[in-house]
Amino acid sequence: MKIETEKMTEASPASECDAKTKKENASELRQDLITGDWVVIATGRAKRPDDFGKKERKKEIVDPEVCIFCDPVRSGQEPDVLIYERASGDWTLRVFPNKFPAFSRGKVPCQISEGPYFAMTGTGYHEVIVTRDHDRHVALMEPIEIAEIFDAFQDRYLSLMNKKNVRFISMFHNLGSEVGGSVVHPHSQLMAIPVISPYLQLELDGAERYYRSNRKCVYCVMAEYELEHQTRVVFENSEFVAFCPFASRSAFEVWVMPKKHQPYFEHITDEGKLALGEAFQKVMHSIFIALNDPPYNFYIHTSPCDGKDYPHYHWHIEILPHTSIWSGFELETGVEISTIQPEVAAEFLRSKLYQ
Amino acid sequence: MKIETEKMTEASPASECDAKTKKENASELRQDLITGDWVVIATGRAKRPDDFGKKERKKEIVDPEVCIFCDPVRSGQEPDVLIYERASGDWTLRVFPNKFPAFSRGKVPCQISEGPYFAMTGTGYHEVIVTRDHDRHVALMEPIEIAEIFDAFQDRYLSLMNKKNVRFISMFHNLGSEVGGSVVHPHSQLMAIPVISPYLQLELDGAERYYRSNRKCVYCVMAEYELEHQTRVVFENSEFVAFCPFASRSAFEVWVMPKKHQPYFEHITDEGKLALGEAFQKVMHSIFIALNDPPYNFYIHTSPCDGKDYPHYHWHIEILPHTSIWSGFELETGVEISTIQPEVAAEFLRSKLYQ
Repeated sequence: MKIETEKMTEASPASECDAKTKKENASELRQDLITGDWVVIATGRAKRPDDFGKKERKKEIVDPEVCIFCDPVRSGQEPDVLIYERASGDWTLRVFPNKFPAFSRGKVPCQISEGPYFAMTGTGYHEVIVTRDHDRHVALMEPIEIAEIFDAFQDRYLSLMNKKNVRFISMFHNLGSEVGGSVVHPHSQLMAIPVISPYLQLELDGAERYYRSNRKCVYCVMAEYELEHQTRVVFENSEFVAFCPFASRSAFEVWVMPKKHQPYFEHITDEGKLALGEAFQKVMHSIFIALNDPPYNFYIHTSPCDGKDYPHYHWHIEILPHTSIWSGFELETGVEISTIQPEVAAEFLRSKLYQ
Repeated sequence: MKIETEKMTEASPASECDAKTKKENASELRQDLITGDWVVIATGRAKRPDDFGKKERKKEIVDPEVCIFCDPVRSGQEPDVLIYERASGDWTLRVFPNKFPAFSRGKVPCQISEGPYFAMTGTGYHEVIVTRDHDRHVALMEPIEIAEIFDAFQDRYLSLMNKKNVRFISMFHNLGSEVGGSVVHPHSQLMAIPVISPYLQLELDGAERYYRSNRKCVYCVMAEYELEHQTRVVFENSEFVAFCPFASRSAFEVWVMPKKHQPYFEHITDEGKLALGEAFQKVMHSIFIALNDPPYNFYIHTSPCDGKDYPHYHWHIEILPHTSIWSGFELETGVEISTIQPEVAAEFLRSKLYQ
């Protein structure tokens, strides 16, 4: 997160380090190419890849009869803002405002500053995207159903991006109470808010800085390198590449990225959504098998909608299976410790790909 | 985390916002005065203060007979680097290298870069600070025992800060398996590493920026304002103030800060440690009562030891009781959602202070 992507000049060049020295050091500090942040790959504390899935996701059982998302009308949810139906009239996906929003629909935000501090009312939009089936979460869906979720994200994004005071839209999904999934029924969420995500801002700044130095998109450089070497690639099709990032923040982290440069998720085409549905299904299913149905979060990182252009950003999805707990070190420093090399994680995920 | 501490110019000034508009908006966006980051205080999702302690910390029972920290010699830990004993010869606190270090003692870090990416071996020091009693964690200790922990942190800091390739020392404590406390026996940790914490860097940059604009230390400004208004203050004595920060990242977060400007924790005096022991004990015990013995992390934020001066930084301790789980929104954006106002949290903690 250092602004100058400062490299450790004190470190000896690779040529002077013999294999023994490297081997004696059971951990690696890897630098995020985009933000300059650091992660630790502590292989001295390593587990085997199949040890990561030994702790099962808490399976909270909620009877579909009383599930608030199986029949949102009966359970008194807010009216739908979008609904997808089959020809038969059955709904497959619906979107409605969150009944307990973290951001409330409001007019202009009010300043509520105090002394040296600045604050404002939390105005915005907070919506829920619910798929029909109570049990079938994303890893178990068909590619076409996943494509429909991304279609809904895109539809709502396009509707909300030009609203007054919306500068950024967060699109994310939590599965499992361990990672904030408070309702068992599979659902995604969307928050349209008046400030830009600080983490996204670090990526925007990093992409801009890299472009100024190298005249290339840093994400394109990563995708090209990963595709050429394949060691961290989990899956690819004509439009997308899925890989475990070199500086993974957590074990088995996967990014799904368009191969062609594209700053704006909302510009995705229908063909793009189908290709994304395929890639996403492959990856999520391999995580499901490899880690024994783990809790997970995923989210879309895309350019803000604050009226500015972001030609050097490159949208992508980050998938974070939950296999470990942050301690005081991570909370203090922002330096995550992972106990598996991304190369080993990718190889294990590839071996679990559903053919 | 925006570098320009940008305020929402679109927000209406306080004078134009009537009480009704404010009330209708159940949430607030508060900006961190130091970093420019945002947090959400979603009071529409609020619980009563005493609801936060309803979920008890997992109490893993480990027989002191088999506890690896009750008798570190018997359990084959590394040899002590520091030990505190009573006149009777009984030890009260000891420090030894972590047997499974995240950073390994090594010579010069080796570059292990690959293609466009940069990495190096994770050399450094990773030590454990263990107090004698198997059950009595920090909230239950006497002030003098807590002062001893900070004395040990200081002692080890002074020993490690000038080691080659140590630029930053992380000092932290995890209690509870929910927050990364993998050993039940109370212990703190210290990691001396070759890179500066990205989160600390944000604070260093923010403090520098604030000083350039205002010719004042931003932490001194905060302490002064909090002491004058008292609404967020939990406890104060002659040398320290403990308060819930205006832009708390989590419910019941507390910072303990020297009242006088001081960039370097390692300069703390013996009197300072006694005053810190008192303040820390009061705060930790009120958290223990208010939240029903919750899991928690705390850590010391102090200037790096990279040979540069940091005259505008101000060391402090951040205490994060664990009462909620980060979801995809927090992981994506770095914007934390808290469901209690820091003012209400502080009032509740004050009401639970052990007199």
